[in-house]
Amino acid sequence: MTHQSSADKSAASVTSAKFGKKLYQPYIDAKWGLKNHWFPALYSHELADGSFGSTTICGEPILLRREGAAVHAIEDRCAHRGVKISIKPHCFKKGTVTCWYHGFTYNLEDGLLTTILAAPEDPLIGTLRLKTYPVQEKYGIIFLFVGDADYAPVPPLESDLPKPLERDYKYFSPNLTDDNVINLGIRRSGNANWRLAVENGFDPGHTLIHWKSPLIYASNRSVPLGAKPLSDKAIRFFDQEGEPKGVMNMTVPDEDGISHYQPIFENKELGIKAKGNSGPTFVRTSMWLPGVLRVENFPAPGISLYEWYVPTTEDKYDYWEMMTFTVNDEEQRINVIDRYDNYLKQAVFHGFNDDDVWARDAMQPFYQNGVGFDEERLGTMDAVIVAWRKFLSTHARGIQTPPKELGKSRR
Amino acid sequence: MTHQSSADKSAASVTSAKFGKKLYQPYIDAKWGLKNHWFPALYSHELADGSFGSTTICGEPILLRREGAAVHAIEDRCAHRGVKISIKPHCFKKGTVTCWYHGFTYNLEDGLLTTILAAPEDPLIGTLRLKTYPVQEKYGIIFLFVGDADYAPVPPLESDLPKPLERDYKYFSPNLTDDNVINLGIRRSGNANWRLAVENGFDPGHTLIHWKSPLIYASNRSVPLGAKPLSDKAIRFFDQEGEPKGVMNMTVPDEDGISHYQPIFENKELGIKAKGNSGPTFVRTSMWLPGVLRVENFPAPGISLYEWYVPTTEDKYDYWEMMTFTVNDEEQRINVIDRYDNYLKQAVFHGFNDDDVWARDAMQPFYQNGVGFDEERLGTMDAVIVAWRKFLSTHARGIQTPPKELGKSRR
Amino acid sequence: MTHQSSADKSAASVTSAKFGKKLYQPYIDAKWGLKNHWFPALYSHELADGSFGSTTICGEPILLRREGAAVHAIEDRCAHRGVKISIKPHCFKKGTVTCWYHGFTYNLEDGLLTTILAAPEDPLIGTLRLKTYPVQEKYGIIFLFVGDADYAPVPPLESDLPKPLERDYKYFSPNLTDDNVINLGIRRSGNANWRLAVENGFDPGHTLIHWKSPLIYASNRSVPLGAKPLSDKAIRFFDQEGEPKGVMNMTVPDEDGISHYQPIFENKELGIKAKGNSGPTFVRTSMWLPGVLRVENFPAPGISLYEWYVPTTEDKYDYWEMMTFTVNDEEQRINVIDRYDNYLKQAVFHGFNDDDVWARDAMQPFYQNGVGFDEERLGTMDAVIVAWRKFLSTHARGIQTPPKELGKSRR
Repeated sequence: MTHQSSADKSAASVTSAKFGKKLYQPYIDAKWGLKNHWFPALYSHELADGSFGSTTICGEPILLRREGAAVHAIEDRCAHRGVKISIKPHCFKKGTVTCWYHGFTYNLEDGLLTTILAAPEDPLIGTLRLKTYPVQEKYGIIFLFVGDADYAPVPPLESDLPKPLERDYKYFSPNLTDDNVINLGIRRSGNANWRLAVENGFDPGHTLIHWKSPLIYASNRSVPLGAKPLSDKAIRFFDQEGEPKGVMNMTVPDEDGISHYQPIFENKELGIKAKGNSGPTFVRTSMWLPGVLRVENFPAPGISLYEWYVPTTEDKYDYWEMMTFTVNDEEQRINVIDRYDNYLKQAVFHGFNDDDVWARDAMQPFYQNGVGFDEERLGTMDAVIVAWRKFLSTHARGIQTPPKELGKSRR
Repeated sequence: MTHQSSADKSAASVTSAKFGKKLYQPYIDAKWGLKNHWFPALYSHELADGSFGSTTICGEPILLRREGAAVHAIEDRCAHRGVKISIKPHCFKKGTVTCWYHGFTYNLEDGLLTTILAAPEDPLIGTLRLKTYPVQEKYGIIFLFVGDADYAPVPPLESDLPKPLERDYKYFSPNLTDDNVINLGIRRSGNANWRLAVENGFDPGHTLIHWKSPLIYASNRSVPLGAKPLSDKAIRFFDQEGEPKGVMNMTVPDEDGISHYQPIFENKELGIKAKGNSGPTFVRTSMWLPGVLRVENFPAPGISLYEWYVPTTEDKYDYWEMMTFTVNDEEQRINVIDRYDNYLKQAVFHGFNDDDVWARDAMQPFYQNGVGFDEERLGTMDAVIVAWRKFLSTHARGIQTPPKELGKSRR
Repeated sequence: MTHQSSADKSAASVTSAKFGKKLYQPYIDAKWGLKNHWFPALYSHELADGSFGSTTICGEPILLRREGAAVHAIEDRCAHRGVKISIKPHCFKKGTVTCWYHGFTYNLEDGLLTTILAAPEDPLIGTLRLKTYPVQEKYGIIFLFVGDADYAPVPPLESDLPKPLERDYKYFSPNLTDDNVINLGIRRSGNANWRLAVENGFDPGHTLIHWKSPLIYASNRSVPLGAKPLSDKAIRFFDQEGEPKGVMNMTVPDEDGISHYQPIFENKELGIKAKGNSGPTFVRTSMWLPGVLRVENFPAPGISLYEWYVPTTEDKYDYWEMMTFTVNDEEQRINVIDRYDNYLKQAVFHGFNDDDVWARDAMQPFYQNGVGFDEERLGTMDAVIVAWRKFLSTHARGIQTPPKELGKSRR
């Protein structure tokens, strides 16, 4: 039991009051998110051919347009007078977008001002450029690389997705990037800073909010009250050069069959026992830069849950919830969609995850002025949260700065 | 008439532009209220046995719980991640409350973290403490002592209630603390700083807003247009050690039968006369720390009106309106309740007091950034307002500081 | 074509990033509007005899009262406790207004505190004064002179209205000040800073937003995609001492029959042509201090459109839209009103101008913290915008300061 008390000791010492500002200042500064990473912008089905869409990522307003096979993403703020082009975008010529106000017309590929509707000889033409965003449409999602215009080379999309599980892994759960899968999901807006959403997402100590979730009753899978890290190996870091960067809760036995988390099923002092009677569930959570959660074997064995918490503004995030199912033939595909549409979508994304949405919102007042990072008191269960904060501070490709138009007072 | 002109002169010189900052700076600083005083939190009937309640007093979020005869009050912010426990409080064991998020469990008596649902060996246990509040439930109200955790000794509740009138006082009106009374009231939220609500409450110059109130027509009691202080004795101070601290408008003849306020029934220049024909009404107002109004013989002889203006945030207050009636037997009790329910509650708390509610809100923009205290121009009628500001600055047990979580910019 | 390329060159160099702060800093400072100018407050028909009205101009709350032939305008903030008198104004005596709260009574003519309802001997009487505003009611509008209390002499109203067109001007369009006209209009609130509304109003490059306006289809008048300034003469300045100060887009041939703007009917690169087939329309726009637009021969030959953009707060303006029609006899008057009520009011003020309203709102986020003035990139079409900014900086009688009650942080 020696390692146990030493784990306790180290966990007890991670209160941010003492070490926070030193150990993960970049994380505290990342109110507006990270930069130079790939973020999901829209589900593919949200952008029809020939149509425009828009979103805001890390404070940057972005206009999207699909033209046949290509999807373009360009700064959604006209260089002229700063209006959002997406209010009423015109496309008078393929590969361009014309601002509704004064006819400033930009090339969707490189963002260059190519003409002005009523001033085709204006010297500004060819000299102004809107920011454009590298786009990859894969796995049913339109991803954008949001960051410095001169960041090069742009890393592969897959470096910002959870590292795929290997097919021969004992408790395999399908990867969103696999060939024989279907990815089904929704997205919505949450009213909290993105970091609070991330921390909630893979927090091993927050299961009380799901204690009486209908999903638990429906599945009768045992859900412990929480889990206690037994050693440093409870948290596994993925930090290899060129690979996805992430932090994993090792709630499932490791390669040698050793468990590094002890599930807690009872608190005698409070007279509380966990619900459910089944054996181990092999659920394992991991969080990846720039804020992507994978939950293996959840909501049921053989299904993976993915979530993104995309910063919109300093107090809003776009909450992506997606499940990945293995589908080996058309019949399976039809059945999976049927089960998703009629049961899992509601039970998981709403019945279960809704509790997470309000829990994140509940932290926001305490953290919104940065005070929470000084005043919080973290415990043993939070070892992975602290680990994530430090990990991100080391491995993020950059920290986003606040939007210029907020003025100096907000910068 | 010598004293009169000298009174005028001194009143004219109390404009805050000249003296304010020097004479009552603590009052100007008391945006978030006073501290180390007793405040009403809930009416007794609002907290059923075994249930939780919550409120915010002077910016402090507070969770209440009734367990049989005992009422507990504890900081409504989990020490761990700062969420409001009251969003979904659990009681797994008598005398404790468990936070819905990570199962942090506190002793309701002393605020100590006694266990964590899924981390019962966490070293934080026994080392963290939420603030708890002394509670007294009396007179149909749950009162809390809000202030410094180490303030001792906690003064008696009655030192923060209006000083009782003596039974043999010629114009006696019942005390809320008397044995043979019933206290009936409501509470609601107002959108102004608590100081503006207090100043409105016993302001002798504000009767024009009630000029055409249905209550006046119904009673035909004469209500002067206002009252003019005749000497320094118009304002009586109650500042004896260990007793309630208050300021009284001596609108009723003193022990020697001398009047120190001259009621004004007419303004000839404007051609306006007061309404009502009856003789003197023996209505007398007084304001007590930490902001409790008593109006004697109002809305009718033999009834007392009490009001609290409890600071919630810097621009909200909890408005308590309560009437105290003498009831010597069950029949009288039934009649009083019947009259209150069917007439006085509506006529006084809404028909009459609603005008005060919007009048307070109307001052808020001028005072919200502190500018009003510099720019206001006070007159003779405001002598008691200025007296109250100075009196409070001397006798308040402390000035509340803004909530930490607002960050440095708001402190 | 020499002058053309030099015009291009100079236009290209007017980006505010380079010169803005130097050339028109007063304009950038004019967030709350100008001062010492005449502004419309209410249409005459909005203020019935014996009634009160209220508005806010350049951040100043103003109470209006009509007494027979006279209209009075006085500061709508009681000197005593800063409340808006207009919440419930009393008039107990002709020529005065009494505040609803404590009966402070002011002379409407000079603003002096003449009595206090219940303190008629208060020494404040005769020493306090609310600001009063010079009023002129003409042309169906109540105009106020808003500025320094000691500004003298107050210039004539007509110095702040567009300079009348002369009867013998070839493309004459009626003046709102003419004898044989009728002025018909509406007003409403817009959510943008007043400067953005002004700049939109006479912006020669913004016609794309009206490209498919029903009004264009209905009239079949040719509307170019935009207009290109051909020389410095494209913009005419009116800056004669004692006369209205304004800036005019010379979109109509000058006295010598020379055109200084070239209308653009087609952009070949985009494959876009203007709508409409008729010949020249002789529409000409001009903007006058303190922010009054005239559009000659619009919405049809022989009609003038006038618009005011009156600053309310830093992010709201009162939008006045008015058409001036020539009426030489009663039958014509009836026909004009009939056509206005049933067609033009809807087609012009709503169908057409609504697009301008949202366009102004769309610029607000970019400019609200002043960032837009640094970040905007202006082109040749904006020569008149830049000219206006400089012209105003030179000729405005003063720049309004923010309201005191916002406190130091907003000043």
